[in-house]
Amino acid sequence: MDFFFSPKAIALIGATTNTTKGGFSILKNLMMGFTGKIYPINPRYPEILGLRCYPKIYDVPDPVDIAIVFVPAALVPDVIMDCVRCGIKGVMIESGGFSETGEDGKKLQEILQRICRETGIRLWGPNCMGLVDAVNRNVFSFVAPSIWEYGITPGNVSLIVQSGMLSAGFLIDAMTHGTMGFSKVCSIGNKIDVEECELLEYLISDNNTKAIGLYLESIPEGRRFLETCSRSPKPVVVLKGGKSQKGAEAAMSHTASLAGNSAVICGALSQAGVVEATDFKQMIDMCRALAAFPDIKSDCSGRIAVLTFSGGAGIVSADFIERHGLEIAKLSENTIQKLKTVFPEWMPVSNPIDLWPAVEKNGGRITYQAAFDAVCSDPGVDAIFIHLFAGGFALNFDLSPIADSMKSSKKPVFMWLLGERELARKAQIIIQELGIPVYREIQRAVECIDVVFKRNKRDLPWNPFFHPAVTETVKKWNKTFTESPDCLDEHVSKQILSDFGIPVVTEIVADTSSQVKEFTANHGFPIVMKGMAKGVIHKSELGLVRKGIDSNDRIEKVLTQLNDLMPTDSKILVQKQIDGSIELIAGFVRDPHFGPCVMIGLGGIFAEAMEDAVFAVAPLSRKDALHLIERIKAQKVLNGFRKSLPLDREKLADILINLGQTGLCFPQIQEIDINPLIVSDGKPIAVDASIILRKTP
Amino acid sequence: MDFFFSPKAIALIGATTNTTKGGFSILKNLMMGFTGKIYPINPRYPEILGLRCYPKIYDVPDPVDIAIVFVPAALVPDVIMDCVRCGIKGVMIESGGFSETGEDGKKLQEILQRICRETGIRLWGPNCMGLVDAVNRNVFSFVAPSIWEYGITPGNVSLIVQSGMLSAGFLIDAMTHGTMGFSKVCSIGNKIDVEECELLEYLISDNNTKAIGLYLESIPEGRRFLETCSRSPKPVVVLKGGKSQKGAEAAMSHTASLAGNSAVICGALSQAGVVEATDFKQMIDMCRALAAFPDIKSDCSGRIAVLTFSGGAGIVSADFIERHGLEIAKLSENTIQKLKTVFPEWMPVSNPIDLWPAVEKNGGRITYQAAFDAVCSDPGVDAIFIHLFAGGFALNFDLSPIADSMKSSKKPVFMWLLGERELARKAQIIIQELGIPVYREIQRAVECIDVVFKRNKRDLPWNPFFHPAVTETVKKWNKTFTESPDCLDEHVSKQILSDFGIPVVTEIVADTSSQVKEFTANHGFPIVMKGMAKGVIHKSELGLVRKGIDSNDRIEKVLTQLNDLMPTDSKILVQKQIDGSIELIAGFVRDPHFGPCVMIGLGGIFAEAMEDAVFAVAPLSRKDALHLIERIKAQKVLNGFRKSLPLDREKLADILINLGQTGLCFPQIQEIDINPLIVSDGKPIAVDASIILRKTP
Repeated sequence: MDFFFSPKAIALIGATTNTTKGGFSILKNLMMGFTGKIYPINPRYPEILGLRCYPKIYDVPDPVDIAIVFVPAALVPDVIMDCVRCGIKGVMIESGGFSETGEDGKKLQEILQRICRETGIRLWGPNCMGLVDAVNRNVFSFVAPSIWEYGITPGNVSLIVQSGMLSAGFLIDAMTHGTMGFSKVCSIGNKIDVEECELLEYLISDNNTKAIGLYLESIPEGRRFLETCSRSPKPVVVLKGGKSQKGAEAAMSHTASLAGNSAVICGALSQAGVVEATDFKQMIDMCRALAAFPDIKSDCSGRIAVLTFSGGAGIVSADFIERHGLEIAKLSENTIQKLKTVFPEWMPVSNPIDLWPAVEKNGGRITYQAAFDAVCSDPGVDAIFIHLFAGGFALNFDLSPIADSMKSSKKPVFMWLLGERELARKAQIIIQELGIPVYREIQRAVECIDVVFKRNKRDLPWNPFFHPAVTETVKKWNKTFTESPDCLDEHVSKQILSDFGIPVVTEIVADTSSQVKEFTANHGFPIVMKGMAKGVIHKSELGLVRKGIDSNDRIEKVLTQLNDLMPTDSKILVQKQIDGSIELIAGFVRDPHFGPCVMIGLGGIFAEAMEDAVFAVAPLSRKDALHLIERIKAQKVLNGFRKSLPLDREKLADILINLGQTGLCFPQIQEIDINPLIVSDGKPIAVDASIILRKTP
Repeated sequence: MDFFFSPKAIALIGATTNTTKGGFSILKNLMMGFTGKIYPINPRYPEILGLRCYPKIYDVPDPVDIAIVFVPAALVPDVIMDCVRCGIKGVMIESGGFSETGEDGKKLQEILQRICRETGIRLWGPNCMGLVDAVNRNVFSFVAPSIWEYGITPGNVSLIVQSGMLSAGFLIDAMTHGTMGFSKVCSIGNKIDVEECELLEYLISDNNTKAIGLYLESIPEGRRFLETCSRSPKPVVVLKGGKSQKGAEAAMSHTASLAGNSAVICGALSQAGVVEATDFKQMIDMCRALAAFPDIKSDCSGRIAVLTFSGGAGIVSADFIERHGLEIAKLSENTIQKLKTVFPEWMPVSNPIDLWPAVEKNGGRITYQAAFDAVCSDPGVDAIFIHLFAGGFALNFDLSPIADSMKSSKKPVFMWLLGERELARKAQIIIQELGIPVYREIQRAVECIDVVFKRNKRDLPWNPFFHPAVTETVKKWNKTFTESPDCLDEHVSKQILSDFGIPVVTEIVADTSSQVKEFTANHGFPIVMKGMAKGVIHKSELGLVRKGIDSNDRIEKVLTQLNDLMPTDSKILVQKQIDGSIELIAGFVRDPHFGPCVMIGLGGIFAEAMEDAVFAVAPLSRKDALHLIERIKAQKVLNGFRKSLPLDREKLADILINLGQTGLCFPQIQEIDINPLIVSDGKPIAVDASIILRKTP
């Protein structure tokens, strides 16, 4: 895709002299920064802004790498065909009026897709803002040329943004503030050809990019996206728009893109080691932090030292640090002694470290430097959170020595900055050039510290191409799938799961009371008896599940009752009763974008109430499975409380891995539901299960 | 306290010519804005900045209302006594060096407290930043005089801030930005005399104040604070520092103030209709919103229309709106028809309303105005969230007509604004002057919309002076309390609760199996038998609770077993077994700052795991009790699911009110614990309870 990012010659189809139009802004922006050749195309003008203007693309005498198109939608297909004939490699279509505008636009877009498929020309857009490359000063976009007046701040964060107006507006806001530098900002609009996965690949190998942020309204190639992110050595932050029901509806009508199941997306992103953002500015704030500190040692737990000029700000910081599950570092005796050399005698030293009394004694520079060096060399400190004020209070000093200590220690440093408006803005720019990300709100700073420490680093990339061998087990059950209607009964479902290594409750199918009694003779009381009527999935609701049967009398009674409730060809399932401390639900589903997925969550009455269920995309590595279990909110329940044993996480990981395997082995399976998966003495065991088959159209 | 806020003459004790010192800054600030008489006091100078300087306060020939003191701590007591002798009403002590600096400082502070008590002089501070009144241009503070260069923006938000450095730094940051106006900012420091409750009273009756924000590290007079807030017709926002454990430790060492139990504080604030903030800027952002819209009609549920220039921003807004429990308004057919008049034909209308295609057709002004008028007159819309861009895109137009429509409709309007740096800042100022609060992040805007709608408006203020009459019930049990050791046994505890109208399980105390059998003859099986050994609170852990007893055989067996486990003088408690769908815990505690409090939370194994317990300060009104129940997170559990009936909230409210009454009637009670409070067929009933007595020293 290099030709899009580093073209030598660009044709601008739709260039105009009308300064209120995008075709003028794009030309102006090209002329301000792009160092290659520019060919404006418009039959109405002989020249624009001093450049010779050509009537058609094929009038350009020299070779052209890419064309930027900004003409009415209806003209775009012909223009693209012209480009194809001229041997142009790629076209950036910035015009709107395609699938986002209803049926007619959709048809136009389909024509573009066909041209792309048939001719091999690469298409970027349509309905997008194009590309802004602040490092190379390539602005292939209709963003207001007034941005040049503020100066284009280069940086190491690159973005991929699906929404055109958003990327334009937001980018101007961020760039004109001057405190945030960008590398490449790619606006992909309706993404008919160039899309997030390919651009992500490109940015991963781009030397000017250290962190990548994406705003996406849909992730249609979910598995490819997951795989690409999981391979990325660079931090990736995703803001997925349309996570709520209403948000998703808005996404539908906005770019006609299907917003996937938000729990699945959330699981897949977590599995890929991607950081999730919820707002635009937050996304780039997180990117800044991750670009500055992409490689935190994995044994760091996030123990923070806070150096502040305000006790109150220290207290509020500690509140946020604790809320995020980070820690206020416990300072070593050595560190405390060092701090005491700058502190007034009466002042006790504790973290958060209120430096103000020491600043009054020694001045800002000496105090901050001494305190920084003390905490930086403390092995119990993983990161340092500095508070500073620009514009008085003796707190304006050169932070270069602190930045040098930071670099040699490899401990990340973050700053919360207050100050007089312009002084604070300038201080932020200077301090960030030293490599310290600066934030203007404590909450945001701590959020960003958090993602630097929480970013899940995968040992190995996720491999979507893993296919288990067709084993004897698969052969054994294939016929059952072929011959069954929409779902397999509980007993067969559990036999299959058991063959895939999932522990299931001991059970038999019985017709007579003597068979049941034989079962209790072997396995003891109490037992559970269930009526298996054909096609019934939710037995409890029909009174077909009887628990706590502890005598032969009860067996007879229950048998009679169950038989009364069911058709004559029904069977009785007899199980050992499993009493456990925790009820879980595990499952397998196929997501339209991410394919086979595994789910685990809390069961029982709290399943619906707490919505504590998490997803991962299959196949799961052991690390994926353990990470999935960690994502359940009710960790305290899993860790065992009162007298119950903690959950055996390795055993549950086996189940989740195998659940994914089962679904992957049988494309006939639409869904698997293990409910409940009871944890008894720490070991999870499937007590009820059903396998639901894909509907064949 | 008017003399502090509107003095006619001020003496500044500790005035100096040294421009780096606070004593100079205060003088400079006084001279920039204060219109009364200023008397610098310092024996070393004949004059400062052209004003005559007096050696001592009693050298001032004219009457003086207040003195501002900025001399070393050790000199402060003498200086205050001088002020007393001169008949000065109030002193603002801005010097530090008191209780925040250890033992010596604490002693100095105690001297000040004694002077205050004995002479009646009012003391503000010490260790504070004093007062900034931006409306009257009274800056009685050492904040950097450079703030005057930026212009002091008056506004209608007043603050009370406990931390000096914080209020100084934060105020300069906010004021120099120019987008946030303040009325009175009071920094109260160690608050030895003037404190939050009195200032809050003052600001509630201050005509220039429409919303009040407080940063507090301690709320020692919890009940008075709650009562004052609950009476306030003006919105109050509190940021309580030191809510986490580490935060609280920092608070301890910072201002030697005791951070109260955060769940109790959180409950009390909610009960008082106070909005809680978590960060400084967020607090003033919330205050701005509440000052603009303090009186939302109470039947508004928060149905939001979003007018945006970016589909992407609309989607992200919808996500936040849903996350906060607000609603994306469903537009009426009439509104949709009106919007269609400005929309291009191909564009479907839905909320969030993406106006960009309409802006391209009609321009920004016409489109936004038409859309605003349409949604503003829609009865299904409670508030309007406008997105705008300053600096291009045809979105720079006069919003006065929109502001006029807003005022006549009485529907609140909020704005998210992007734009070129300085243009956006200026646009924000202009738009805010029209009465529309503007935010720079979507998340923050929605948080602020949320607090405007969620602010709990009390019908009646909370009344802490309510004392129930000493009834027969109190007389009946008083002896029991006097004669009992540290706790009352389960049976007596429940008898007392029952006398206070709390439903308890049917039970008897038995010695013999025939008594138990008589009980089952009257009340049926199954029953629960509990061994009541003296001094044992946690019976389950000792095997003294036996459930599911359903035959006479079992009664005999269990009786023998229980008697084996206990000393000979123990009794057996026999209860009907209550099986319910939900297990709750209810309780009563005395908090050191807020006094008698009532607690309700989820019980069973999830009690500890979910930490879903909420507090309110007793006495509880019915509204308090119902509001408390609404604050439980697991609302879905309470609403009933699967086949269980929903909780009878009125019945639970009765229990909570009566639980508070019980505690208030008996000062001997330290704690009441009802665990479990089982909800059976929707009705809560106390199954186990214990009353723990106050330790007499």
